[in-house]
Parts: sequence; structure tokens; C-alpha cells
Amino acid sequence: MNLTQFLADLQFDPNQIKTDSDSLNNWGKDWTKHFAPAPSAIIFPKTTEQVAHIVRLANTHSICLVPSGGRTGLSAGAVASNGEVVVSFDKMNAIGTFYEADQMVEVEAGVITKALQEFANAKNLYYAVDFASSGSSQIGGNISTNAGGIKVIRYGMTRNQILGLTVVTGKGDILELNGGMLKNATGYDFRHLFIGAEGTLGFITKALIKLEKQPVNLTAMVLGVPNFESVVTLLDRFGKALNLTAFEFFDSVALDKVLSAGHAKEPFDTRTPFYVLLEFEAVSDDVLDTAMSVFETCCEDGLIEDGVMSQSVGQLHELWKLRESISETISVFTPYKNDVSVLIVHLGDFIDDIEQIVKDNYPDFEICWFGHIGDGNLHLNILKPDTLSKDDFFAKCQMVNKYVFDTVKKYKGSISAEHGVGMTKKPYLDYTRSPIEIEYMKAVKAVFDPNGIMNRGKVFDI
Amino acid sequence: MNLTQFLADLQFDPNQIKTDSDSLNNWGKDWTKHFAPAPSAIIFPKTTEQVAHIVRLANTHSICLVPSGGRTGLSAGAVASNGEVVVSFDKMNAIGTFYEADQMVEVEAGVITKALQEFANAKNLYYAVDFASSGSSQIGGNISTNAGGIKVIRYGMTRNQILGLTVVTGKGDILELNGGMLKNATGYDFRHLFIGAEGTLGFITKALIKLEKQPVNLTAMVLGVPNFESVVTLLDRFGKALNLTAFEFFDSVALDKVLSAGHAKEPFDTRTPFYVLLEFEAVSDDVLDTAMSVFETCCEDGLIEDGVMSQSVGQLHELWKLRESISETISVFTPYKNDVSVLIVHLGDFIDDIEQIVKDNYPDFEICWFGHIGDGNLHLNILKPDTLSKDDFFAKCQMVNKYVFDTVKKYKGSISAEHGVGMTKKPYLDYTRSPIEIEYMKAVKAVFDPNGIMNRGKVFDI
Repeated sequence: MNLTQFLADLQFDPNQIKTDSDSLNNWGKDWTKHFAPAPSAIIFPKTTEQVAHIVRLANTHSICLVPSGGRTGLSAGAVASNGEVVVSFDKMNAIGTFYEADQMVEVEAGVITKALQEFANAKNLYYAVDFASSGSSQIGGNISTNAGGIKVIRYGMTRNQILGLTVVTGKGDILELNGGMLKNATGYDFRHLFIGAEGTLGFITKALIKLEKQPVNLTAMVLGVPNFESVVTLLDRFGKALNLTAFEFFDSVALDKVLSAGHAKEPFDTRTPFYVLLEFEAVSDDVLDTAMSVFETCCEDGLIEDGVMSQSVGQLHELWKLRESISETISVFTPYKNDVSVLIVHLGDFIDDIEQIVKDNYPDFEICWFGHIGDGNLHLNILKPDTLSKDDFFAKCQMVNKYVFDTVKKYKGSISAEHGVGMTKKPYLDYTRSPIEIEYMKAVKAVFDPNGIMNRGKVFDI
Repeated sequence: MNLTQFLADLQFDPNQIKTDSDSLNNWGKDWTKHFAPAPSAIIFPKTTEQVAHIVRLANTHSICLVPSGGRTGLSAGAVASNGEVVVSFDKMNAIGTFYEADQMVEVEAGVITKALQEFANAKNLYYAVDFASSGSSQIGGNISTNAGGIKVIRYGMTRNQILGLTVVTGKGDILELNGGMLKNATGYDFRHLFIGAEGTLGFITKALIKLEKQPVNLTAMVLGVPNFESVVTLLDRFGKALNLTAFEFFDSVALDKVLSAGHAKEPFDTRTPFYVLLEFEAVSDDVLDTAMSVFETCCEDGLIEDGVMSQSVGQLHELWKLRESISETISVFTPYKNDVSVLIVHLGDFIDDIEQIVKDNYPDFEICWFGHIGDGNLHLNILKPDTLSKDDFFAKCQMVNKYVFDTVKKYKGSISAEHGVGMTKKPYLDYTRSPIEIEYMKAVKAVFDPNGIMNRGKVFDI
């Protein structure tokens, strides 16, 4: 490795390379705090060709590269803690050609999610992926982790919105994948291999994104529910009757914290162990009548103890705050976060098992549950007791992890539903993927990145 | 290669192996007629483990294997013309566990598409992939070619319905891919690599399939349209106003043939160069009013010359016959078929270019266009003139191919939208995929099938 020679050989403008310590610290990490950033340099390419140039030279000089987007990742997938050179997409943030007839737009990898959402709105269309970090996260990072969020039940993951990709492989080859077509049955669809690969096969530089129709008259209900079993029954009942755009849940611990922090208003007086936030398009009075009728039947059947429905866009946003403020609110309690998924049929048993494990082993831990229940995706948060130091708390949580992931494995679930593997979940990859699958993954990586320079040490060790 | 020893080593029941010439001829081919079937034997495994056993022994004995489903393929992807052993999934046709809460069902690869559709109906759900051969095609084959059909505009390709796969790789390893989860961000999604791989990486033995809600009050319109440009404008206008479940088109040549053959009734008196069949869920009177209002505006604007809307399920089926009988009707004219796609923005220019090419070079050829216009997918059929022998006609069509695929390349389209590559499109693969992409495909195949025994000679040569 010869960093100085590598940087000189790039022949980039001086403002495209940063090596000062503030920059190294800033662009060397994401939202995870487990690993100290220690990159050697930050490079800011402006074109796909420059990215390919970087990768080819990095192979020559044995430089390891880490891709960097909005740095909002929660699994340390974009952390450079080992002297790597960070390739930031901050200067590749152009929104390109809009294909009106195809409801599609080409964007560079560095475009911020919110900017794409706003572009779509301006075209009277809709970018369907949304989550808490949409104001900072970049499209390239979203694609590389196959980001999910709050509208998956209706629109699918980021994967579902991607009609084409431009990538630079670990060998420095530029591939144009799928060209925006809805139908293209001409061999292996490498587009889907790069989606969710966390930059370990190559770097995504551009994407062709499908835009959706604007949703009509979005309407939310918040429901107070006596137990988790009822949450799953409500998903079934409302799911059959309405075209849901969201079906989220949270527990009373989450609600208490959000209300105490003043981040949202109490939805109704009744307090219940669990809450559901569901959303649908009220395209007609018939749909509203159906929603009310299901609500009433569910109340009679004891599945709902209280509830409220938004009557305006303002009220819709107020209700969403109950769900959307949870992450920020609980961050002061130094939560230990897990992001797991199981089939919906197993959700109830899974939650029971985990609560029993924590009660038996860590009676002083407070648990806070919330998540995208319509997708089988649960965010399990363990809150730090005041009596424990941060280090002791995280050490104990590492021990809880084993039990949690054993339980995920028991129900054949995923140890990372939407946050990726990166470095934080790497030790647990074999709880969801078999050893033989992991061997095939390594062999496929070797095809696209034979020298192992692309985000080395993420997802698995090579 | 030692076939006798291979078959003996399998230790299967005698009824699981056929070597008589009728069977070799029957299971050795699909719907394409370009290649003579010449397999060595047909094997009928009953379990995934038996498939793995076959593949491991085939590696030992250097036997090449060809997967065989419903044999309805149109690109010779399942033709065994070179002494291969055919692995038929006819005995693996069980519909397995139904996951009601997840709206998902596990099926073996040999389940007929129509059987899955009927199973879904019996559960008051819907399997969203449908096409002309659904009464014979098998799910394993559908997945291996990522089958499309008439509902893609609403529900996506087969790829969109697959939540999990069980596969046997070319090395004989059994992989359980994704386990039915909507969200699972744990490394490379090999499920999507096997979808559309045409059996060249391994064989699909089971799938977890997502089922959809039943559509409500499906309603069709058939519209007479003065030119192709108007077809594209209508797609835009109706697409913005309604949630379309289909948007198909055909030209007057196709309609003439269907009506002459007595396969459908004339939709209205006016004759126009092009016709559109669109379908939507008339969930309320408001939706019907919207449809009528768009129709009237389009008539005023000269985009539509005549039209009809179904008023009953019977009329819906009658109107669909106009579109669905085309393939069968024109088969007596020995059509030369192409299945291409381009972005919707390019459709008009693409059709103009092709018509000009045929007019300039082959003035005695009659062209028949139809297809899934909402997906940018066109079926171009050249009909054989009476004056030409079949051999001369196909020879001339091969020459047209070059011009057609040059035009596909000009618009960065796909030489096979939904029929796969198999053997018939193999010489043209590089019109859609770059040489470097094809090299990566070969390298990925070598990872999963190092001895090159899985459907060798399909998609590309190794």
C-alpha cells in the first residue's frame, strides 16, 4: 500500500481529496458508535468514470476502499476503522433525466432521499421509501442496504423501486444493469445482487428509480390494544378490508417515553399495553365506512380498547409523531437496538420468548418494542438502567444477543431486517444464513472483487 | 460419461426413470421447434434430497442435466438436444404449507400455474401471474424464466411474488434462500440470482409464494385507436386516472385474424389501425365515472375512435378473448416471433423503425403487433407469405433479426422481455448485455456449477 502515490496518481482536483483529521473523523463513520473511525483519506469523485479510476488504481496500490453516503447506517457498514480510503458520494448528487412516460428518474448515488421525495412530489408522483433518516441518507446507501421503512407493506423495500443501476465492480469495470426496463429476461439479474450487498461487490454510482402515483387522502388510525395477540389479529382484519399503506405498532413503554418528552400528544385517555398505527388511502366514503365498520367489530370483539382516526392532514401528521418520535426519544436511554424479522405467523410466540428471556436473566432491564408489524419486522430496544454503567450495560446486552439470535434462529427469522450486516451483525450472520450460503457469498465476492478491496471486513470476513 | 452406471447408482424406483423413445421425445423438448430433442434419459425425482443426489452423481459421472417443467418455453431453455439427462419435476407437484397470516404458500417446483391460481382462489386470495400457458406451465419454470404475462403492470413479474426458494446448486448443495421474509438484509440475495437463471446455476425445487388480495369487480375497456402514438398517450391518461390491472394492445392485423377464425366477437363496428384493452378494479361508482370521463375526453381529443366497456363478468371474458386468442390464431400462419422491450418513451419510434425496416427489405411480409404495452413489452410477429416455403421464410427472418435487434440496441432495450434466452436468443445476448457483463455471468456460473453440467449451452456458451 502506497497512499501518497495512490492519491497522486488519481490526478484529481485538490478539493476532491481530504486528509485533515476533522474530515477523517467526519466521513470515516456512520451513526453506529461501536468502532472508532480511522480512514487514511477521503475522496470525492464527481463521475462514474472517476469512481472506476479510483477502483482500478486502488487495486494497483492495494488500497482498501469504503463507500460513504449519508452515514446514517446502524450496522457500521460505512465505517472506515482500519486505514481505508473513504469514497464519498457527496459530490455525485445530481438528479438526472426524468422519464415521464415511464414514471422513472435517474439519480446519482449521492442524492439525499428527501430530495428525491421532493422531486417526485414536484412531478405529482411519489417516492415510496421513507424512514426516519430520509433527510440525510443517500440513495446509494439505501440501495446498498436495501432500506425498508414505514411504507414497505404497500410498496416493498428499496429493491422494488430500482429499475436500473450503474455500478463499478471491485475490478473497476463499469456495468449498466437493466437499463430501466420492467421486463428483461436476458440472464442473471446482477442488479439484485448489488442491491443489499453493502458495497462489498462494487460501488453503485447511479440508479434508475421507479416513482409511484401520489397516494390519495391518507388517513391514519391509532388503536389501543390489550395484548400483542390482538395486534396480529388486527393486522389480519384491517389488512383484508383495506389497502393498507402502513401498519406499525409500539408498546406502552414507547408511548410513555414519547409523551413524557413532549414529542407528541396523547391520542386518547385509555392506556393499553400495545398500540397500533395503521394508515390507508380513503379514496371514497365507502372506504371510510369500511374502516369504521371493522373498527367497531374489533371493539366489540375486545381487540381494541380505544381508538382515534385522523380527520385532516394535520391530525395525520400528529398521529404519526407518536410512532416517528420513538427512536429519537429513547436515544437518551442509551438503548441497545436489535432489528429482527420473523414470519407474521410466529410474531406472538417470538415476542413471548424474548420477554421471558429478559425477565429470567435481566429483570432490571426495561424493554421497548416497536416496529413494522405488517412486515414481520420488530425493533427490540433494551433500555439502560440508571444503576448500570454504559460499558457494563453493553457487555450484558452482548450476552442477551446470544439468546435473542437463538430465538430468531428458532423461528427461522432474520438477524437484520433492514439495517444490514456491516460490522455489528457480522458475528451473527450464520444465525440467518447457512455456512454453505456464506461460502457461496465469499466466492461470488471473489468474482466481482478478486483482491478484496471493496468494503473489506463488512458482512463477512474474507 | 457413464449413463448406465449413473442411472444404476441413483437407486431410484424403476418408475422414476424413462428411456423409451416416446418419453425421450416428449420430455426432451419445449414449445420451440428449432431443435430436435435427443436426451439420454428422463428422471423424475420426488424430493429436494433426490434432486441433490442426482446432481452430485451427475458431477461424478460427467452427466449434463436439463431441467424440465411444463415444457411451454419459447426459447428452447428446456430442450435436451445433446444427449443430456432430463430432470422432470412432474412428480414434485405438492402444494405445501399455507401461511395464512403471511398470505404465503409453499409449493414444489412442479406445481402447475393454474393449480396455484385455483388454490389461491379457494383461500379467497389471488396468484397474480397469468399468461396463455398457465394451464401447463410449472412454477419452477416460471421462476427460472421470471415469467411475466398480462398483469405485470399491477403486480410485477414472477420475481415479485417469490418470498423464498429452495434450490440445489450445480455442486449439489441445498440452499434455503430467504425463508419467506419480506425484510431480510443479511448479505447477497441469491434468491434473485436464481430467478431468471434458466436452470444454469442449479435447480429450483420449492418456492414460497406471496398471494395477493382478490381483485374487486374487474372491468375491461376495448378502445379503437387511430395510431400508435395515441396508444401511448392513452396509457398515460388512463394510467394516471385509474389503478390499471392490465394495459394491452394489438393491431388490426391481429384483430382481423382473430375475428376471421371466429375466436372472438367484433367489439364494435368501427375499424381502426390499433386497439387497446385496458382493465381496472371498479371498486366504486366513482371509479367507473372517472373511467367514463377519461374515455369521453380522449374521444373528444381524437385519441379514441370507438370503444366498449364490460358490464358483466361474461362481457369481461368476451373482451379478453380478443387479446388472448391472438397467439393461437396466428400460429397457423407460421409466425416468426420476437419478444422485445424498450422504455415506454421509445415505443413509438421503435415501432416506426421496425415497420420501415420490414417495408424496405421485406415488402411481402405481413407484420402483426401485440403485447403488454404498459410494460414496454412488444410481441413482433412476422407472418409467412403463402409464396414462401417455411425454410426460406425462416432464413429470411433470421436476416430480419439482425435489423430488429440492432433497433432494440439503438433504444437500449431487451432482446427477450419475458421468454428468456435459452438457445434461440443465445446468439443475440450481447445486444442487451455487454461483453463484460457476460464474462461476469460466466464467472458466477462457475461458482455455482463449476463442472458446467447444469443446462449447459443455455443463455451463453461456457
